[in-house]
Amino acid sequence: MSKILDQGVEAGRRERLRIRVGDFSGNTAGLAAGNVQANLVILPKPLAHDFLRFAQANPKPCPVLTVSEPGDPSLPGLGKDLDVRSDLPRYRVWSRGELVEEPLDLFHVWRDDLVSFALGCSFSFEQALIEDGIELRHITCGSNVPMYRTNIQCVPAGPFAGPLVVSMRPLSPGDAIRAIQITSRFPSVHGAPVHIGLPQAIGIEGLAEPDYGDAVPVGTGELPVFWACGVTPQAVIAQVRPDFCITHAPGSMLITDLRNTSLASL
Amino acid sequence: MSKILDQGVEAGRRERLRIRVGDFSGNTAGLAAGNVQANLVILPKPLAHDFLRFAQANPKPCPVLTVSEPGDPSLPGLGKDLDVRSDLPRYRVWSRGELVEEPLDLFHVWRDDLVSFALGCSFSFEQALIEDGIELRHITCGSNVPMYRTNIQCVPAGPFAGPLVVSMRPLSPGDAIRAIQITSRFPSVHGAPVHIGLPQAIGIEGLAEPDYGDAVPVGTGELPVFWACGVTPQAVIAQVRPDFCITHAPGSMLITDLRNTSLASL
Repeated sequence: MSKILDQGVEAGRRERLRIRVGDFSGNTAGLAAGNVQANLVILPKPLAHDFLRFAQANPKPCPVLTVSEPGDPSLPGLGKDLDVRSDLPRYRVWSRGELVEEPLDLFHVWRDDLVSFALGCSFSFEQALIEDGIELRHITCGSNVPMYRTNIQCVPAGPFAGPLVVSMRPLSPGDAIRAIQITSRFPSVHGAPVHIGLPQAIGIEGLAEPDYGDAVPVGTGELPVFWACGVTPQAVIAQVRPDFCITHAPGSMLITDLRNTSLASL
Repeated sequence: MSKILDQGVEAGRRERLRIRVGDFSGNTAGLAAGNVQANLVILPKPLAHDFLRFAQANPKPCPVLTVSEPGDPSLPGLGKDLDVRSDLPRYRVWSRGELVEEPLDLFHVWRDDLVSFALGCSFSFEQALIEDGIELRHITCGSNVPMYRTNIQCVPAGPFAGPLVVSMRPLSPGDAIRAIQITSRFPSVHGAPVHIGLPQAIGIEGLAEPDYGDAVPVGTGELPVFWACGVTPQAVIAQVRPDFCITHAPGSMLITDLRNTSLASL
């Protein structure tokens, strides 16, 4: 194994162990820099198949990195010694759409029928944009990326249905073209934008009032560029109100051993 | 050689021979469908080096497919038995920027110091867009693509300098994103767009008044998408007013043996 791969494995594992033993419980942004961080969704087996079908039919908002065996807390291919029950700083446990608790581990609620999904997250493509010299406004502003519900309906599967949620980044036309090229290389972390330039055409009335996250200024020489967003499956699950469900808490992501660059398709 | 390659070679050569013997003198659009067609520029050797430097520094408007040896009327790699003196339907001969004649062949003006440049043309990437199901408005309208002088200056080389000329195609935001992906694969025929959405930002005051070609309607749900255009080197040469120069006549392109698909970089 190369030294760089070793760094990815070691940095990811080191942070997960630190979190596991309770030495860290904050936001994972910036930890194990350059490693893939993932959204976590855990569902009972009967619902897991419909959710996987939903993700398969809507790969841009729901890019599946891996799916666990039922009851198995490891995630094949994402990390050495990884345990989804303890390796994220904070979780959210839901019952019929209501937030029940925000525990630091899942041992007390774990069941043999639980299936874990790790979904790609925009952190990975944002790193590629930043390394290309593209300014990301929400990072400049120190705020959360603005997200909007659109009038585009996801392809339904079983009980899972709902609108596509998008994140928005204002870019100069030249940076927008470059960002389309760069993010096209990362289909497993939302891929190319789904829209550019005309928010009303996808049902967004005002950029100043995002449905999630924080508004950011858009300059006169800039176009709003919209990517499918990982909040989509979270919003859809909230609407389905399953009897039991677990997700990561906002900002408390699953840190993997994979390098972001390893996700590039070209 | 595969059957498909054979088709490209044979179809290209067949059309060139038909043109050579005077059986065809019209517009080459649609001839040897799927084969690369090229812009032709012929300059005396002393200017040719500066022009090649200009093209090298401005690859988006001036994508060089091949350059001939001085005085040699063949073009390496572009076609079997190809003779640039006879294989285009019509030429333009220029002296100090003035159009001198529009001959059907070049035997009477040929010289041992002439260097031929074949430059990529948007026909190649337009075929890839059409095959992907993207509507090209100027084709729907049966008119020439609208072209505009921008406020973007090319990188100068020797006497060659001037503004970038762009072609414009109105596209829905979804088609625009797809078109950026597709044309990024074709760097040798202008490649990805240079601008999208904000014409005034590149010095274009009104889309209804193109500097070359014909205006086309732009729908309310569409964005104007701008590609670097092969008219750029022609406009630059016209400004330099060289003692002697030959170009293809508009619409009378060089038909090669290469398939458009063979230009894809990925």
